[in-house]
Amino acid sequence: MKGKQEAIDIVERYGHGGDPWTAGELFQREARDFIDFSANINPLGPPTEVLRVLQEAVTEVGVPGLARYPDPANRALKKALAESVNVSESFLLIGNGAAELIDGVTRYVQPRKVGVTAPAFLEYERCACKEKAEVIYLPAGEKEGFLPEEAALIEWIHAVDLAWLGHPNNPTGLLMPLSFLEIAAKEAAKSGTILVVDEAFLDFIPDGERRSLLPRIKEFPTTILLRSMTKFYALPGLRLGFGVAEPGLVEGISAMQVPWSVNGLAQRAGEAALVTSDFANATWKWLQEERSFLLEGLKGLLLIEWVIGAVNYLLIKLKDSPGIQSPPSRWLQQRLGERGILIRDASGYPGLDGSYIRIAVRSREENAYLLTQLQAIEEELQKGLEGVDRCKEGGGT
Amino acid sequence: MKGKQEAIDIVERYGHGGDPWTAGELFQREARDFIDFSANINPLGPPTEVLRVLQEAVTEVGVPGLARYPDPANRALKKALAESVNVSESFLLIGNGAAELIDGVTRYVQPRKVGVTAPAFLEYERCACKEKAEVIYLPAGEKEGFLPEEAALIEWIHAVDLAWLGHPNNPTGLLMPLSFLEIAAKEAAKSGTILVVDEAFLDFIPDGERRSLLPRIKEFPTTILLRSMTKFYALPGLRLGFGVAEPGLVEGISAMQVPWSVNGLAQRAGEAALVTSDFANATWKWLQEERSFLLEGLKGLLLIEWVIGAVNYLLIKLKDSPGIQSPPSRWLQQRLGERGILIRDASGYPGLDGSYIRIAVRSREENAYLLTQLQAIEEELQKGLEGVDRCKEGGGT
Repeated sequence: MKGKQEAIDIVERYGHGGDPWTAGELFQREARDFIDFSANINPLGPPTEVLRVLQEAVTEVGVPGLARYPDPANRALKKALAESVNVSESFLLIGNGAAELIDGVTRYVQPRKVGVTAPAFLEYERCACKEKAEVIYLPAGEKEGFLPEEAALIEWIHAVDLAWLGHPNNPTGLLMPLSFLEIAAKEAAKSGTILVVDEAFLDFIPDGERRSLLPRIKEFPTTILLRSMTKFYALPGLRLGFGVAEPGLVEGISAMQVPWSVNGLAQRAGEAALVTSDFANATWKWLQEERSFLLEGLKGLLLIEWVIGAVNYLLIKLKDSPGIQSPPSRWLQQRLGERGILIRDASGYPGLDGSYIRIAVRSREENAYLLTQLQAIEEELQKGLEGVDRCKEGGGT
Repeated sequence: MKGKQEAIDIVERYGHGGDPWTAGELFQREARDFIDFSANINPLGPPTEVLRVLQEAVTEVGVPGLARYPDPANRALKKALAESVNVSESFLLIGNGAAELIDGVTRYVQPRKVGVTAPAFLEYERCACKEKAEVIYLPAGEKEGFLPEEAALIEWIHAVDLAWLGHPNNPTGLLMPLSFLEIAAKEAAKSGTILVVDEAFLDFIPDGERRSLLPRIKEFPTTILLRSMTKFYALPGLRLGFGVAEPGLVEGISAMQVPWSVNGLAQRAGEAALVTSDFANATWKWLQEERSFLLEGLKGLLLIEWVIGAVNYLLIKLKDSPGIQSPPSRWLQQRLGERGILIRDASGYPGLDGSYIRIAVRSREENAYLLTQLQAIEEELQKGLEGVDRCKEGGGT
């Protein structure tokens, strides 16, 4: 009974991290009291320029954003984005978060077979299920060095109608070589497969644009690139993502969208975010420093086997140490949750098991607090083991 | 060529009113310069209490709304709504505008045949098309007194998998007798048809709740009620709607939704809107006064045959007067658009032709301005006709 209860009541009850409300119910705390390492949001944001525009929009009700319908065609935002990423507006698709576009693409393609790497972001699978498609997994786990084998990739692209690649992948945080993406996109064009490269976290890499197929998107008529504006600019509450693809695809996917799916404040925030140059530099500087700090600290812990990740989140493999209940990912999530810290149990990702957790890189203060709490948990574990040993020797009561 | 151009470039290019951006392109004006009678938004809103919460949410970035993911389960909003409309939370479904729920319902039902009244809100049809369903029209036009015949209604309910009734209907603004809705809901339960009663504008009627099946929703397991929070509270930019139905339906439709489809600010605004009691009274008072004022003024115009509507918008039948280009709806929309006033050309609704326009009830100042401009157009038309007569008589150059 208890086992069943636990199987249902997990922090990721709604499929994702960033849910302190469910954690609050499970750990008997207020949602606002958690430090959230389970969602990968830039702690430097939202940018001041974005806040200013939003403040105006919810004060001066005559301006667009709140008391008027959103522009159904996202015109001003598309114009700003087209300049920013240097494509024509007809190549742009705006979504109510990248999540709406993942759904929209799947719905448009109506695939019989959907290709998903193992591991990968769970929404690709979920949308495939909604459309009653079969999911074909491409192994890209620890055994493969978290990068699919080239021959397997090509075979997989040809075997499916719709294929998803994370760049960087979630939850590994690892990028694919550009040559690899190029092969995938070429093979996809050959076989008529729609290939989506999900670049939701690519902007956390200073030279991300050089590592993307975006400048050459016209060469790949069946490839769609997805970007998010909610992680880097810290606007997940508002929802905003975009896609880049040839205009025929853009039109087809748009036709699947709900009218006004992108709210008016998100459109205005997105426009404002694109003219914040210092914010990007500050973010890259913060990330370099804090990822190093966190990596260094994590590597010193006995609980941890290894840590990887090139962007603002890290995939961690835990050791299966004595005293830890199985699975370790759930056990550690529980221990940290009781201390007001949320992490992502990564055991739910296809191809991963209960050895893996994912954490976000946050501010120095918060990162230091996480490390302190992990150390405290390690110490308690040591003491607990010592206690067990004493009992075996007949000591204690 | 010109005809074709005009057929494409209409103000309702994206299917709906409330789009001053498209109108701006067509009438060479700034979007913000239009007085918008084409969208039915309460000019008294948004309520102060809502603005206050939103202002806090875009200033204090630690609070939910902006820099955190939205609650995927809309918990706080559902709790507030459950108290407000007096149903249990499990009967509630929250959407990114009612538009997302119209799409979600259709997608969940996967109907072969969708029943739509003629006329009705266009999204019902559009969603049926997206799901490749056949649309079965139930006549409810001028000939039927804008209310379907009872026998036809019953037959129609049994002939479709999913049926839509607007209460009040859009664009007529007319309510259905409660006994009529009851018959529809009972027949739907008998035949297993999913019946959706779209009550997006019902809150504009002071005794709306008494005219709804909502208090008896448990008796009708295949009936879904849809409500909007964006018209009455003037939050169309933010997007917020909800549905009421038995929990099994709620779960099934929820499973079709995109994660975090309802943004964090909409959730907070919705909660705040539900505790604004004076706002509702002020709205009902404004509407009673201004609808009378507008009706009175419109009835005095030679252009107008009749006006109907019980809520915050009016359906108008235009006379086919000499000097007016056909269709009159487009002609008048054009004349008013040039003067910075947007109205809804209702000729696109099934069952209506180019004799019909729809206008919103707005503030006294704006309503008076609309009447003045309509009078001015009538006068110009008179002068033009006099001019034509003189030409026929050989006068002028």
